[in-house]
Amino acid sequence: MTNTTTTTVATSTTSTTAAAGATAAAGTTSTTGARTVAAYAAPAPKAPLEKTVITRRALGEHDILIDVRYAGICHSDIHQVGEDWGDGIFPMVPGHEIAGVVAETGPGVTRWAVGDRVGVGCFVDSCRECDNCRAGLQNYCTGTPGAVFTYNGVGRDGEPTYGGYSAQLVVDEGYALRIPDELELDVAAPLLCAGITLYSPLTHWGAGPGKKVAIVGLGGLGHMGVKIARAKGAEVTVLSQSLRKREDGLRLGGHHYRATSDPATFTELAGTFDLIVNTVSADLDLSAYLGLLKTDGTLVQVGAPEKPVSVNAHALLTGRKSLAGSMIGGLPETQEMLDFCAAHGIGAEIELISADRINEAYERVLASDVRYRFVIDASTI
Amino acid sequence: MTNTTTTTVATSTTSTTAAAGATAAAGTTSTTGARTVAAYAAPAPKAPLEKTVITRRALGEHDILIDVRYAGICHSDIHQVGEDWGDGIFPMVPGHEIAGVVAETGPGVTRWAVGDRVGVGCFVDSCRECDNCRAGLQNYCTGTPGAVFTYNGVGRDGEPTYGGYSAQLVVDEGYALRIPDELELDVAAPLLCAGITLYSPLTHWGAGPGKKVAIVGLGGLGHMGVKIARAKGAEVTVLSQSLRKREDGLRLGGHHYRATSDPATFTELAGTFDLIVNTVSADLDLSAYLGLLKTDGTLVQVGAPEKPVSVNAHALLTGRKSLAGSMIGGLPETQEMLDFCAAHGIGAEIELISADRINEAYERVLASDVRYRFVIDASTI
Repeated sequence: MTNTTTTTVATSTTSTTAAAGATAAAGTTSTTGARTVAAYAAPAPKAPLEKTVITRRALGEHDILIDVRYAGICHSDIHQVGEDWGDGIFPMVPGHEIAGVVAETGPGVTRWAVGDRVGVGCFVDSCRECDNCRAGLQNYCTGTPGAVFTYNGVGRDGEPTYGGYSAQLVVDEGYALRIPDELELDVAAPLLCAGITLYSPLTHWGAGPGKKVAIVGLGGLGHMGVKIARAKGAEVTVLSQSLRKREDGLRLGGHHYRATSDPATFTELAGTFDLIVNTVSADLDLSAYLGLLKTDGTLVQVGAPEKPVSVNAHALLTGRKSLAGSMIGGLPETQEMLDFCAAHGIGAEIELISADRINEAYERVLASDVRYRFVIDASTI
Repeated sequence: MTNTTTTTVATSTTSTTAAAGATAAAGTTSTTGARTVAAYAAPAPKAPLEKTVITRRALGEHDILIDVRYAGICHSDIHQVGEDWGDGIFPMVPGHEIAGVVAETGPGVTRWAVGDRVGVGCFVDSCRECDNCRAGLQNYCTGTPGAVFTYNGVGRDGEPTYGGYSAQLVVDEGYALRIPDELELDVAAPLLCAGITLYSPLTHWGAGPGKKVAIVGLGGLGHMGVKIARAKGAEVTVLSQSLRKREDGLRLGGHHYRATSDPATFTELAGTFDLIVNTVSADLDLSAYLGLLKTDGTLVQVGAPEKPVSVNAHALLTGRKSLAGSMIGGLPETQEMLDFCAAHGIGAEIELISADRINEAYERVLASDVRYRFVIDASTI
């Protein structure tokens, strides 16, 4: 992309400050075109989310307004509200698994028409000029300040970004993805983060026919990994702490299901896998998991433990193994993932909730009591 | 390789116990064909090495007898004598960087003739049947008991193996490598471990034209990495603790030389390298080194720190980076490396010593006082 493209990026023409608890009624449009919309926000770090009103910027030349229909609850939403990864911007409206319908388009929009089914994932902008952005790896944007996160970020206009726990969203047309008609919007929403988080490493490290793949953890991320790896043709093993979800794991696509609490798992499966994707952020003995890899195998972290991860160097050396990381995916690959999921009938397994149950859902996510993703019905916001 | 091959492997026909301090004179041949040869051995863990006599097995069908001319001193020799990596077998004759000349061949030997210039590296046998052995990755042999190390190992005959700090060596013909005429034997010896340890990851991870490669540490391993990476066409940066060896580093092939004790190195070179090979076994802040990698870059450990290595998962995730390990190389790749080094005029930078200075050399290796490899003149053993 070029400077020309850059200059067409919408910048806010309003000085209205986005604010939770603003007095303006949701749904109003100001004279400058900015609008207030209903949302759920955490007013302060670790605080319960409350219904509120935020301001969305006026549509710029290349912006689209999206009526949010569904928003997934990602574990990282809870981390961000809790400031587990650093200071947050409050009030905070989480949500980066967003499925909706285009409600309005800016005058220069060419990709979308009103009524189109679209998704928005973890970022809503990036520098557009660095090598990674040019290569479609906007998730790894190396520009300054890098990819703009869908919430708890700061946009080009200097204003904080607010996520999908809201009735409407304004986003540059280039940062929305098409949700194919074959996918219901509710089960599609979690694909925008959980789906691409697993699809990208499974694709990059070649999960497919003849490959043995293990997915560690059967949660919101892991269950997508099982479905996608199976659809890609790999032989899939779920590695879960216990056998509690075994029936689910096999139903979702796993060929095998083993408990990591059983030491026999690590002896019997030693040297088995081409690829292991670890979706668990808790502190695991990664050296033991490296022992499950074949020569030249890769263990990919997609969760981000708060503490550094530690491995025995011998476990890497003996078999030329790799410990890698992968973080969501770029825009072209996210579209590819949505198309792949549509072609294979893959959506997330969800529990649909009304917005007033977000805080309860957070508690249940923390207790691992969700099969496998909470999705907020945005009509209840 | 097949069972037929396996059954032709030499097994000792002698019951003579290999022993340091044996009374038989070096150079004698027993009626069974086993022979006693002079060697330097550590009689016990951490003990200084002493001149002694060991027994080499009688030549089997496919064995060759090698007159050792030169043996490099690898840092791992010191680790093994010190039992830093586990229990050792004593007396221990170290040495796995061996260059010599074929002195005698078993009746079934087809690859070698008397007078051929040959090298022996870190292993002298492997299962020959596992997928890795069949693929020429004998260094990653997954058979039982795996690759047989050149010393401090146990051969198929159940006898301990003794390394290159000795006048002669008996080895299966398939586990010797040809040293091209263009290479002097003394500077070729360290290629058998230090050379292949760097050549293999540089090759596997694509060091070549257009690629930016950093070598961490300018010691016995690192200086080979600089030479090989340069010859492969990469842009080479040496990352060393200080600028003390800067002149050497540039002379050996580095395009750039930076001190890791200078924090500016980590800010100015952030996101620079496609590949970093870390030859330092000391505890480094690997997350900082991961920050020097481009997206999709790899940091390869070739040294094995005693303590687990620790990295921040975010440093892996943000840029799809990998922390990998690599351990020497297989037989075909070791031959390829020797041919490559011959074609590019690459040998190790060595300090030739007589055998009675081995213990002094060990002290100097531990003090990092060697440029860049001690090589024992085996005529002095």
